[in-house]
Amino acid sequence: MKHFTTVNDVYDLDNLLDDALLLKADPFAFKSIGFNRTLGLFFLNPSLRTRLSTQKAAQLLGMSVLAMNLDKEGWAIEFEDGAVMNGGKTEHIREAAAVLGEYCDVIGLRCFPTLTDRKEDYSESILVRFMRYANVPLLSLESATLHPLQSLADLLTIREHSPVRRPKVVLSWAPHVKALPQAVPNSFAEWMLRGDIDLTITHPEGFELCEDYTRGATIEYDQEKALKDADFVYVKNWSSYHDYGKKKEGGDEWMLTPARLGRTNSAKVMHCLPVRRDVELSAKLLDSPASLVRAQAANRVFAAAAVLKQLLEHNYSAVSKNEKQLEKA
Amino acid sequence: MKHFTTVNDVYDLDNLLDDALLLKADPFAFKSIGFNRTLGLFFLNPSLRTRLSTQKAAQLLGMSVLAMNLDKEGWAIEFEDGAVMNGGKTEHIREAAAVLGEYCDVIGLRCFPTLTDRKEDYSESILVRFMRYANVPLLSLESATLHPLQSLADLLTIREHSPVRRPKVVLSWAPHVKALPQAVPNSFAEWMLRGDIDLTITHPEGFELCEDYTRGATIEYDQEKALKDADFVYVKNWSSYHDYGKKKEGGDEWMLTPARLGRTNSAKVMHCLPVRRDVELSAKLLDSPASLVRAQAANRVFAAAAVLKQLLEHNYSAVSKNEKQLEKA
Amino acid sequence: MKHFTTVNDVYDLDNLLDDALLLKADPFAFKSIGFNRTLGLFFLNPSLRTRLSTQKAAQLLGMSVLAMNLDKEGWAIEFEDGAVMNGGKTEHIREAAAVLGEYCDVIGLRCFPTLTDRKEDYSESILVRFMRYANVPLLSLESATLHPLQSLADLLTIREHSPVRRPKVVLSWAPHVKALPQAVPNSFAEWMLRGDIDLTITHPEGFELCEDYTRGATIEYDQEKALKDADFVYVKNWSSYHDYGKKKEGGDEWMLTPARLGRTNSAKVMHCLPVRRDVELSAKLLDSPASLVRAQAANRVFAAAAVLKQLLEHNYSAVSKNEKQLEKA
Repeated sequence: MKHFTTVNDVYDLDNLLDDALLLKADPFAFKSIGFNRTLGLFFLNPSLRTRLSTQKAAQLLGMSVLAMNLDKEGWAIEFEDGAVMNGGKTEHIREAAAVLGEYCDVIGLRCFPTLTDRKEDYSESILVRFMRYANVPLLSLESATLHPLQSLADLLTIREHSPVRRPKVVLSWAPHVKALPQAVPNSFAEWMLRGDIDLTITHPEGFELCEDYTRGATIEYDQEKALKDADFVYVKNWSSYHDYGKKKEGGDEWMLTPARLGRTNSAKVMHCLPVRRDVELSAKLLDSPASLVRAQAANRVFAAAAVLKQLLEHNYSAVSKNEKQLEKA
Repeated sequence: MKHFTTVNDVYDLDNLLDDALLLKADPFAFKSIGFNRTLGLFFLNPSLRTRLSTQKAAQLLGMSVLAMNLDKEGWAIEFEDGAVMNGGKTEHIREAAAVLGEYCDVIGLRCFPTLTDRKEDYSESILVRFMRYANVPLLSLESATLHPLQSLADLLTIREHSPVRRPKVVLSWAPHVKALPQAVPNSFAEWMLRGDIDLTITHPEGFELCEDYTRGATIEYDQEKALKDADFVYVKNWSSYHDYGKKKEGGDEWMLTPARLGRTNSAKVMHCLPVRRDVELSAKLLDSPASLVRAQAANRVFAAAAVLKQLLEHNYSAVSKNEKQLEKA
Repeated sequence: MKHFTTVNDVYDLDNLLDDALLLKADPFAFKSIGFNRTLGLFFLNPSLRTRLSTQKAAQLLGMSVLAMNLDKEGWAIEFEDGAVMNGGKTEHIREAAAVLGEYCDVIGLRCFPTLTDRKEDYSESILVRFMRYANVPLLSLESATLHPLQSLADLLTIREHSPVRRPKVVLSWAPHVKALPQAVPNSFAEWMLRGDIDLTITHPEGFELCEDYTRGATIEYDQEKALKDADFVYVKNWSSYHDYGKKKEGGDEWMLTPARLGRTNSAKVMHCLPVRRDVELSAKLLDSPASLVRAQAANRVFAAAAVLKQLLEHNYSAVSKNEKQLEKA
């Protein structure tokens, strides 16, 4: 892979999953691959799992990490091209990204959507310009529209726990107190479909996701019907794509409960975390053996490590100066 | 040790002190013991000495560190069990701790008390639940009621500087502008008593510490009497345990001064830092040869390294997968 | 070098530049020089380039890094000597610096000026007291009056790109929306003059820099005249030194534009970043081949690495305990 921002950046999905499983079995199997390489982790928004699991993944590969909360520790960044910078913003993305590119061999970036300007968000303007100006391999730590590291870990978890070759997976909309991005569900859908999973998406009317990601999935507005015979239920809230960024009022009946789960094929319950207990998902289910949320979070490390491995392999050839130094060492 | 949250977690105190001294004499003596191991340092409150000294200790042992200000960089954490999470809190301690446990071999946690709910604080509910849900060895970086890494460094410092086998140590209450936790004095008392130190505690009436920690010490309300023949004076403010969390009005006469120190046996002066100059302790004493505050802070590194060494030894046996990888490497 | 706070700390400038070029050609050439050594990076103000480039430089030399935002993550620091600490400040610089000195082999410190008290700022009271109390080699990450790491990278960039042995360099005042420190221009001037550069400084009347740094440079109030035959133009805003900390109202005509650059000898354009596009400097120039800003930022890594190398060499002799451990390892 040159970059890692969507499943479409992946040349060979099975090979990527195999690398993740290999790293899970033997976490330090590729400890020298990142030798003398630097991963930058830059955050425009909060992060817990992604920050820690990606940092740990870098350590497994022997990479150095430079991590920074760009929103808090650095200078306020101007993203608009052509802006006369006489306001509160101190540094333009062109310079900021260019400089980070000079210091890092791979750049991880987290940038959430505005949820007010759909065109802007779905153009991924921040991510795209970071890639352009930084000019090094970019690793998405969740962007405006996608969260590929999460989805890879999710697919890995499903493969590990599936009772059948092609399980039925239901992505089930959940209530929430805030308007959330569509990045996790968009991403989940495109990875499941690429991974040849039988995917059903269930949500209230008006909460259809962008079809670019869901084409090939079954859309079912009746949650109970959707859950029938499911092997996995992936619970997630998202705000409206069509009435952009709008939160659903009410919808509490969409919370997944043990009773609802009874309609499935003893399905496992998944969530990307953080989860609002007894709002999105019944606390009883989270604390039950049906829950895979801890396994998903654990797999984030191996997903990130597999991706970093392939980014390094593709972008830094074996006969690079770096490798020669390795031989000397 | 399985965990390190109190002196009661320590099997052999002399052995722990010996390890600390060994590390002080030869800081990289155990550089491979933490190879391929990850220490998480998670802060719900500010930290300077503890953060830096523990991070440095991990480096001495070859451990990787993942550090994070959970209160600022992550998601707002809900601590209450059974909470319907429809408010401002984004993630429950059950999920947060479980996930951190997946990424770390040892978890360091700092969590201060409320100072409003004594039962809650003295149940150490945050620490206890972190231990339970993370399910890896826990290293207290100061909890609601105890600060064992500080106390170990203090005991080490006293052993190094003591003119006699069993010195007289006085823990002397000091004035302060804010209501402070009882963690440092509680912890100091339990470590001194376990270390067979002749401990006197002096404080205004109403500022008695919880007897669980002080049983065996001499309590003396008259500071001048208490100081007589002392070899060490440990200065510290704390708020009331009995009238929980209440700060003493006035009490300026309790500030340790050169005149007061004259009543001692040329005692050394100690403080855990940060210290309010000329409020808790005379600036003249802090800047005099009697002060051990810098030595105490320096010993924090070796105290933390000895503890991490024993946590790794106890919890990760020599024939673990990690060790096999070591052999391969 | 014992410390690195000004060009006057440098014994042999050509040797330092040579080390930087050597590290640029072979970044891991000195990978063992920082083995078992710890660099502390402490920030009282925001930092992007300096933080990341210095951290990366430490990694190139095999040093461990302890980084901390002292203004946000630690305790509020009292800088005044003799203060009775009964207000909002929790820890005195005497204790804070002493403790950091115990944990680090080299301390990097960033501390901006007040811009209200010239005497205080130009005495470098924070930097000086940090050095005194920490008692380890100090690396300035930009202080109240100087930014030597930036200037070293600038001089390196000029040497690399100069068409002649002794180029004409113009430091050109630029408009800005805020009152900025004089640290970058002061420092730039003293490094250029020490490096035997033909330096002209142009700025509005009343914006003369402190002569301690500019003695030997040509001062020219007419920007057009100043730019004639220049090989490099270094663009930078600063507030008044004489009417201390005052920002210039207006002055927009001082912005460097392609038309103005036409008067030079096809000069290269430099800026330390962050830069306000179309306020300080025309965006067209920043995006043109004339711009060296990315090259300057890239050179920050090698400037910092060369400085760290020489600080380690000077302060930690080859027969130190550290080295003996190296032999054992």
